[in-house]
Amino acid sequence: MLGIELHRNSGISLARQIYQALRNQMTEGRLKQGEALPSTREMARHLSVSRNTVCEAYEMLSSEGFIESRQGSQTRVANGLLLEKTDLPVENIEESGPSTFSYLVDFRTGQPDLRYFPKSLWLQYIRKASEDLPQEQWGYSGTEGIPALRKAIADWVFRSKGMTVSSQDIFVTSGATQALHLLAELLSVYGKDILMEDPCHIGMLRVLQGKGFNILPVPVDKQGLQTDSLKRNSACAIYVTPSHQFPLGGILPATRRAALIRFARENDLFIIEDDYDSEFRYCGPPVAPLCTMDPQRVIYVGTFSKILYPALRIGYVVLPHKFHSQWRYLRRHVDVQNPPFEQAALAEYLRTRKLDRHVRQMRKLYGQRREILLQAMEEKFGRVWHPWGDASGLHLALEFPGFHFDESFTLRCKESGIRITPVDYHSIHKGVHLDKLLLGYGHLEAKEIRKGVTLLYDCIQK
Amino acid sequence: MLGIELHRNSGISLARQIYQALRNQMTEGRLKQGEALPSTREMARHLSVSRNTVCEAYEMLSSEGFIESRQGSQTRVANGLLLEKTDLPVENIEESGPSTFSYLVDFRTGQPDLRYFPKSLWLQYIRKASEDLPQEQWGYSGTEGIPALRKAIADWVFRSKGMTVSSQDIFVTSGATQALHLLAELLSVYGKDILMEDPCHIGMLRVLQGKGFNILPVPVDKQGLQTDSLKRNSACAIYVTPSHQFPLGGILPATRRAALIRFARENDLFIIEDDYDSEFRYCGPPVAPLCTMDPQRVIYVGTFSKILYPALRIGYVVLPHKFHSQWRYLRRHVDVQNPPFEQAALAEYLRTRKLDRHVRQMRKLYGQRREILLQAMEEKFGRVWHPWGDASGLHLALEFPGFHFDESFTLRCKESGIRITPVDYHSIHKGVHLDKLLLGYGHLEAKEIRKGVTLLYDCIQK
Repeated sequence: MLGIELHRNSGISLARQIYQALRNQMTEGRLKQGEALPSTREMARHLSVSRNTVCEAYEMLSSEGFIESRQGSQTRVANGLLLEKTDLPVENIEESGPSTFSYLVDFRTGQPDLRYFPKSLWLQYIRKASEDLPQEQWGYSGTEGIPALRKAIADWVFRSKGMTVSSQDIFVTSGATQALHLLAELLSVYGKDILMEDPCHIGMLRVLQGKGFNILPVPVDKQGLQTDSLKRNSACAIYVTPSHQFPLGGILPATRRAALIRFARENDLFIIEDDYDSEFRYCGPPVAPLCTMDPQRVIYVGTFSKILYPALRIGYVVLPHKFHSQWRYLRRHVDVQNPPFEQAALAEYLRTRKLDRHVRQMRKLYGQRREILLQAMEEKFGRVWHPWGDASGLHLALEFPGFHFDESFTLRCKESGIRITPVDYHSIHKGVHLDKLLLGYGHLEAKEIRKGVTLLYDCIQK
Repeated sequence: MLGIELHRNSGISLARQIYQALRNQMTEGRLKQGEALPSTREMARHLSVSRNTVCEAYEMLSSEGFIESRQGSQTRVANGLLLEKTDLPVENIEESGPSTFSYLVDFRTGQPDLRYFPKSLWLQYIRKASEDLPQEQWGYSGTEGIPALRKAIADWVFRSKGMTVSSQDIFVTSGATQALHLLAELLSVYGKDILMEDPCHIGMLRVLQGKGFNILPVPVDKQGLQTDSLKRNSACAIYVTPSHQFPLGGILPATRRAALIRFARENDLFIIEDDYDSEFRYCGPPVAPLCTMDPQRVIYVGTFSKILYPALRIGYVVLPHKFHSQWRYLRRHVDVQNPPFEQAALAEYLRTRKLDRHVRQMRKLYGQRREILLQAMEEKFGRVWHPWGDASGLHLALEFPGFHFDESFTLRCKESGIRITPVDYHSIHKGVHLDKLLLGYGHLEAKEIRKGVTLLYDCIQK
């Protein structure tokens, strides 16, 4: 009867199996509209299940309108259920998840060394913060972040960067990427053009392009953005990395900072300052953010991913007053808020200065690795290259005058087991920085760095 | 000399204070370009600080390009630093954070009762999951969610809703809001019109409007979307809540489901199925999702916020193959991924069937509260009202024929200490459902519900 096959050890109840089988037969037309179903008693006997099971299945079908039964008459299939077989072919696309290629040495950029992250301490903070979390923070606790974290971030940017910021101006985000995504939404009402450093972080470029922005590139030299190249234009904002230009490493000098702010004022545009890794500066204190020079025009973006661990997903913006209510509205309709445990743990981690200690330790470690990389380069390559930018961050930009590093070079490196990114990958106008490579060293041990430089040498020799 | 005031008990170092004071004087023009600074020795003596402190401040100024010093000559202020006083007025907008108005009884919708959430059990899961988290999940671990959670969700939708889904099709999101936000981005290339139930969740409406969609409303009756009203049009998608229409509560009957899918096929549009609270159905099992009828055309959105706690921020979509790579690209440029601890804890919570138990317990509790609300209404109001929709969810839609509930009524309720949302608030075409109110009861104790009904009675009498 009706060709129903039941699987008694399946995770799905017998009633649901009966329901599904009957439903499929109705939408596929094997059970026709108006057709009578067997009584629950008959069906139960036929399938060797209890009558209750069949009743449950019939009730499901009835409550969803697949069958109709009137008092004293038979149960019948409802009208209008027929569906042709699905008309969209199931495409068998290969899953393109994260690359699983295994490099011998992976010089990719922006990677903190997670092996030195004090996990057990952090887990204690997570545990304590979770246990102490007030009732209301299990519910919707606000798009702007929990108060304790906003306060702790305000204190942190004050003591680490000399920024005087009200915690009311700090808005917690899911990392710097979300910050930029939301800022792009926010600023899109002001115009469709945006200025960016060239080269720049290609991921950030794509965020802005994805929001429909037309990108106007501004060239970069050893000191960062070339403010002399700024021309009157229709841009509503400029995205910059003044503390440590990504990827070339320059610190924007004071004269250019002042010029940039004057330009922004004259052309009435906002400055998005991405301060993505200024914590790791090896000769001298972190550079003071641009936003201290004009907090109403510069929107500051910071992140803890590079300091703690990438999966944390906590960044923040320091937002001028005029954007506060729009920001709240936007965030509410994008993803509402960050989850609370990490926020509460980070607030304590900041308050008890554990972050400061971690930054100090990592700065020392990364500084040593930078020296090892420079030394290994000199031993292997002599003087054909020189480094760009300031002594800071997790990667180094190296210039090899006269060389041309393109995709075929990247591929050759990959075949030799090393990942190297040419600066050209991050260029908007291709071909300008063909002679430069980026080597991320923050996550690599001395042995790995030396091995990587040897492999790089062989690749360049070819 | 130079009018520098130092605060010795401030959290900020003396060197940084000197640096900031000098920097401000330069950008404000009190120190002019080319002007010589006092020697470090003089300055140290004048400020009664160590010479090292002054040297540190000068180094900061020098490395950022504020001052220039040549061997053997005096240190001078760099050129081009002058900035006019900020030209944007600081607006003193009142902070418009979460409302702090305190209601006697708050009948708002969509609130699970957090007092019954098994927090200590959940915290155990968080702790265990955090400790066991593999190294690679502290880094960028994939836009689609951690594998264990995708698997656990696939099993959960199979056993609770009869959906047969590959874990490869499940993409974890920061709640249903983000899911819809990303889907709107994804579908925007197919067109700029979208069909929505009217009334609908006003927050979801705003997500779609925020993405630039033109909303085409389709009326709703007691059984949900009126598929008879669907006309040929230019929409690229339709957003529906077939398991429990928000806010009116209907379950879309099978005939309409089939009609909806036929319509979508004929007009080549996608169906976004928001299954926001189908777990809480009090007479019978959860309704089978629409997507089981056509998984290549229906995009299913589920969430755990209503089941567990809102701040969790974990939802998911079941995505047809053709969208996978676009989805990954989008998520990478929106906020990269969810943080890992909650994901790992939820995976275990699902795997060990703790969620199933919690849903059973809450369903029972919410069902009782619903009965209490209905009973209290009947005692107070007699027969002038009747409930709409299916016995499910966390709120009830009530019709009072002949009544008109508008904003002035909401205000009157607020003055009496109760929050009540008229259905009209969620209407796209205003004025159609003026005689209906929404009462969220899931988070209220019996006493609160009865008190609220009494207060409501008084408001309606006025």
